[in-house]
Amino acid sequence: MGEEPAEARLTGPVLVVGAGLLGTSIGLALRRHGVEVLLRDVNPQNVTIASSVGAGVDAAHASTTADVALVVVAVPPDHLADEIVAALEAGDAWVTDVGSVKAAPLEAVSARVDRDRLAHYVGSHPMAGSERSGPFAASSALFDGRPWAVTPHSDANPAAVEAVTALAALCGATPVILGPEEHDEAVARTSHLPHLLASLVAGRLADAPPAHLALSGQGVRDVTRIAAGDPALWQQIIAGNAHAVSALLTDVREDLDELLEAVGSGDRARVAALLQRGVEGTAAIPGKHGGPAQPTAPVYVVVPDHPGELARLLADAGDIGVNVEDLHIDHDPGRPVGLVELAVAADRADFLRESLEGRGWTSHR
Amino acid sequence: MGEEPAEARLTGPVLVVGAGLLGTSIGLALRRHGVEVLLRDVNPQNVTIASSVGAGVDAAHASTTADVALVVVAVPPDHLADEIVAALEAGDAWVTDVGSVKAAPLEAVSARVDRDRLAHYVGSHPMAGSERSGPFAASSALFDGRPWAVTPHSDANPAAVEAVTALAALCGATPVILGPEEHDEAVARTSHLPHLLASLVAGRLADAPPAHLALSGQGVRDVTRIAAGDPALWQQIIAGNAHAVSALLTDVREDLDELLEAVGSGDRARVAALLQRGVEGTAAIPGKHGGPAQPTAPVYVVVPDHPGELARLLADAGDIGVNVEDLHIDHDPGRPVGLVELAVAADRADFLRESLEGRGWTSHR
Repeated sequence: MGEEPAEARLTGPVLVVGAGLLGTSIGLALRRHGVEVLLRDVNPQNVTIASSVGAGVDAAHASTTADVALVVVAVPPDHLADEIVAALEAGDAWVTDVGSVKAAPLEAVSARVDRDRLAHYVGSHPMAGSERSGPFAASSALFDGRPWAVTPHSDANPAAVEAVTALAALCGATPVILGPEEHDEAVARTSHLPHLLASLVAGRLADAPPAHLALSGQGVRDVTRIAAGDPALWQQIIAGNAHAVSALLTDVREDLDELLEAVGSGDRARVAALLQRGVEGTAAIPGKHGGPAQPTAPVYVVVPDHPGELARLLADAGDIGVNVEDLHIDHDPGRPVGLVELAVAADRADFLRESLEGRGWTSHR
Repeated sequence: MGEEPAEARLTGPVLVVGAGLLGTSIGLALRRHGVEVLLRDVNPQNVTIASSVGAGVDAAHASTTADVALVVVAVPPDHLADEIVAALEAGDAWVTDVGSVKAAPLEAVSARVDRDRLAHYVGSHPMAGSERSGPFAASSALFDGRPWAVTPHSDANPAAVEAVTALAALCGATPVILGPEEHDEAVARTSHLPHLLASLVAGRLADAPPAHLALSGQGVRDVTRIAAGDPALWQQIIAGNAHAVSALLTDVREDLDELLEAVGSGDRARVAALLQRGVEGTAAIPGKHGGPAQPTAPVYVVVPDHPGELARLLADAGDIGVNVEDLHIDHDPGRPVGLVELAVAADRADFLRESLEGRGWTSHR
């Protein structure tokens, strides 16, 4: 009667291999639920830090690892296959990893263990991270509300899939089950392509005259934000998903050729059609909480750049009873005043704007 | 002995031609300072609305337009040249426009008026807008804190440059002076290229399976946000700056070919070098208030999705005395809880995080 709690599907300690940002955060999240966590890392200092912040205990100090229910491999992409194989050969626990690509490690592992061993492995990928790395950057809340891909292969043991799904749920994430190849195609489109194209746009700013960059608005800032990510990590991710990324980049090059031709020949209808396809793409991204995208409308408010002013604005919005769905602060040069964009339900925007103006704010839609 | 106030450089009424979003907002902004504003539009209803919200008076009701000091042409890109020429031929006022591209209209006007008339014209471009259009969407605060490009040609009268600069300052914007060609190159890089590449990334989402889009995180949302803009307007902007946009798109196609070759051949060092150039580009964008970019660090906080909770968080941050430089709400599917990223001065992040946790918030860096 009712669903079995996620805890019930993890029946023993979890061994985390790699006590960096992700591994330590997983330990912290599991400890919230009282799950026993053992920690291992090639760098003993990482284990010391991770255990000191409460992410688990040093596996070397455990009396036994024979009863481990699940091994979570959380090492850099280039070392994934080795550690997954080692974990599969060490015992009968289920094994997962949290790397950003799934097909290439699976293929490498498949070539090195027999089918019975392979059945114990199910890859996964939490859609969460940080510009920082290492156990100090970890948090039990890192995965709260995030999608966490669980990617069973055709020979995976259903109980292993269940254990990895339980891991994601215990960490506060939303499990999304899809195949390894499908996962890699999905992240090529939703993560790797955006990263690479943001990087190309940003690369074209690197040599621009400062006077040109003085005209930068919020748009270019938003488009290029993720391009600030660590190239050393990202080149590993791209290399691990080279096939899917190449296919998409090839498609985009065709779009770009069409765009260049249309702009060069003054074919306005074709430019508009390409832009229209982009509009449709933005509408296809799922809305908040996985439901269909709700129509929102922006309300712009001028906010003095002092501590507490933004809070006062949002306190007023809360008093007015309108839920702020999203918020952007416009960073504009030359004035000690910010322009804040509040996204609210479209049918509440006029009410919010009028109510805020009644409280002395300067606003517009 | 101190700077002459901007008001002093506008010595008579301002005639706004085109009472849409920008024209009406300019009228509202000038009226804040008591500047007399006359309004004209091919659509009389726009003038009625604009004057009713306080943006100025119908020019047809003015006793004379002979004393007009400055004409502001605020019509769609395709009609700019005609209206600028008409304004130059109608009298001796200075004339500006607020279109998104500057070289093509200047060339068209130069071909149709003599050099003495042309000296009265100085183009300009406020870096402000909205997804909405028309006089109802207007606001006196639209330009507050925004850059406003002022783009004199070589024969421009210095007094005209001064009048247009005064207009920008009176509207609350920061004037940025640069030549028309330079302006068009600058916005090709900081606005048109980001828009087009965001549109290509978004276009590749349009046909993606919903299961793939379930893995969408904040990154792809930020990259594609501006691609939701109106294709009918954007195709005019791109057409008006086709030369500079084509040149940049050609550069980007070369980068893309290099990236494709590097990914396809597994040349990781070359992929990393392209990514590194993107990192440098993001660092080149000027920081808040035109100063050098200040290092900020993120603090992530879990916020329940109820009205007022975000306000309570920011009130706490204000009490703690840390200024929030930027804020993003992470829209993640499946949970009634949001992850809010607060960007604060890097040397204040740990203090903020610890103080917030002391007040019961769940946070991490």
